[in-house]
Amino acid sequence: MSLLIVGSVALDTVETPFGKVKDALGGSAVYSSIAASYFTQPSLIAVVGTDFPKKYIKLLNKHNIDTSGLGQVEGRTFRWSGHYMYDLNSATTLDTQLNVFKDFNPKIPKQYKNIKKIFLGNIDPQLQYSVYKQMSNTEIVACDTMNFWIKNKSKELKKLLKVIDIFLVNEAEVRQLAQESNIIKAAKYVLKMGPKVLIVKRGEYGAMCFSNNSMFAVPSYPLENVFDPTGAGDSFAGGFMGYVVKSKNVNEQVLRQGIILGSVMGSFCVENFSIRGIVNKKYKQIVDRCCEIKKLTHFENIK
Amino acid sequence: MSLLIVGSVALDTVETPFGKVKDALGGSAVYSSIAASYFTQPSLIAVVGTDFPKKYIKLLNKHNIDTSGLGQVEGRTFRWSGHYMYDLNSATTLDTQLNVFKDFNPKIPKQYKNIKKIFLGNIDPQLQYSVYKQMSNTEIVACDTMNFWIKNKSKELKKLLKVIDIFLVNEAEVRQLAQESNIIKAAKYVLKMGPKVLIVKRGEYGAMCFSNNSMFAVPSYPLENVFDPTGAGDSFAGGFMGYVVKSKNVNEQVLRQGIILGSVMGSFCVENFSIRGIVNKKYKQIVDRCCEIKKLTHFENIK
Repeated sequence: MSLLIVGSVALDTVETPFGKVKDALGGSAVYSSIAASYFTQPSLIAVVGTDFPKKYIKLLNKHNIDTSGLGQVEGRTFRWSGHYMYDLNSATTLDTQLNVFKDFNPKIPKQYKNIKKIFLGNIDPQLQYSVYKQMSNTEIVACDTMNFWIKNKSKELKKLLKVIDIFLVNEAEVRQLAQESNIIKAAKYVLKMGPKVLIVKRGEYGAMCFSNNSMFAVPSYPLENVFDPTGAGDSFAGGFMGYVVKSKNVNEQVLRQGIILGSVMGSFCVENFSIRGIVNKKYKQIVDRCCEIKKLTHFENIK
Repeated sequence: MSLLIVGSVALDTVETPFGKVKDALGGSAVYSSIAASYFTQPSLIAVVGTDFPKKYIKLLNKHNIDTSGLGQVEGRTFRWSGHYMYDLNSATTLDTQLNVFKDFNPKIPKQYKNIKKIFLGNIDPQLQYSVYKQMSNTEIVACDTMNFWIKNKSKELKKLLKVIDIFLVNEAEVRQLAQESNIIKAAKYVLKMGPKVLIVKRGEYGAMCFSNNSMFAVPSYPLENVFDPTGAGDSFAGGFMGYVVKSKNVNEQVLRQGIILGSVMGSFCVENFSIRGIVNKKYKQIVDRCCEIKKLTHFENIK
């Protein structure tokens, strides 16, 4: 019962109308590992520089995350800086310093090669594919991507998608990938590219899940105070994947429950800056929020 | 078991990427009356010109709509012309000719004054208020509005909202009215203005319902082919109100079921031009689509 997660570890500087953090722990692999850690043991594959604070590694370990695959190399850690306006829907990137992340070429340690369930966080699809190829015995391969790779590494992404079981992606990116504004048509198009399951993250509008024979939709958990949307999608993916790994049989109901848990972890994430919203949660807090989504969406049959 | 509906009756010229109609039957009162007619008998209060085709009145009557309050006066019927681009999210108005609608000052016929449930479709809030004042014994007063009135008749709208039980409005308009981008905060603000229940229409993202002690959210019925969004919100309101009138006790469950039926009528509406999508439906078709939304949104409890 283990989950391999590859992605970025970053030091983020983020400003929203509600505050600012500098060089705070961030990155797709960090958010998704922490979110997944409530359900399974994540093994992290990523790279940091020599400036990466030891306290952050301690924090990850305290969260039951295996960091033996977290490489530390000469140089500075990947840094991202952005700000959000009042509507909090999209970030404006102020600065990106790839630093040690520029030469990131993940080598999977021997002890990880038999892990059966993997999540390829949002990095170059070529690297995502290379991680997949190094694994010897995968049962579930999930990945995320972003507009930049859809535009600039289309060929590599298409190759990757052929081997993907579960593709988690933003609504705008599904539209971009399919060149189609209707989300149902776009989803069908993307499913034909390879993934067996497509999970569409819709931010404040919730999430949808598509496979060849089913469709699921859930609104988001309603939040009155959103402080920092950074990492919400990665937290979603981590919560979802963690639950999928925890469950023995991956059937339609497990996928749906996984999406609820993903939504819940995403909702915790945006309630605070950096990873503050998703660390040190009690399992009961997570389950309680799932129940609240159940109550929020319940209606009696109509005859 | 009857519902008074006041609003516009129009001849619409609409162009979308999928086709065009000229002088087709439209208007808020038309869409909402037809949608409501599957659940109750709507009584229509509106005005048309001498050019209004008799066949349209026949169509309304065939749908069990009482048109004895539909005034016909010298002049041309209200005309609206607009077009939609591929994303079908917002209409660009090409032309608005108020014509006989300019001097519309609804007089409620004596036989209607005791109707207990009324829906004040999207017209000048001053007129909506005047209709309310003419009724002698209302139990449920519902209304819609639009950005134009929020901006230009703010004082009149505020006066109206004080007497409203159920306020149905678009998401962008809730934000505009509350001057607040967070929809939960905005909804709370609007509830303080008077309405006991606020229903937020979110287009392809579904709908939400707010009251002082509950919240409900549902995604929209997924449609692969949307031909013409005109009238979707009015059809939603009609389906919702029709069901509320049909139900004896208006409790939380009835409101939620009403929203499902509103969503279903809205989804039928956009599948064809003008009122073609919502006329001559079988009750079973409506209930079947409700069941599909139930299946779409169902998930098992998480422990």
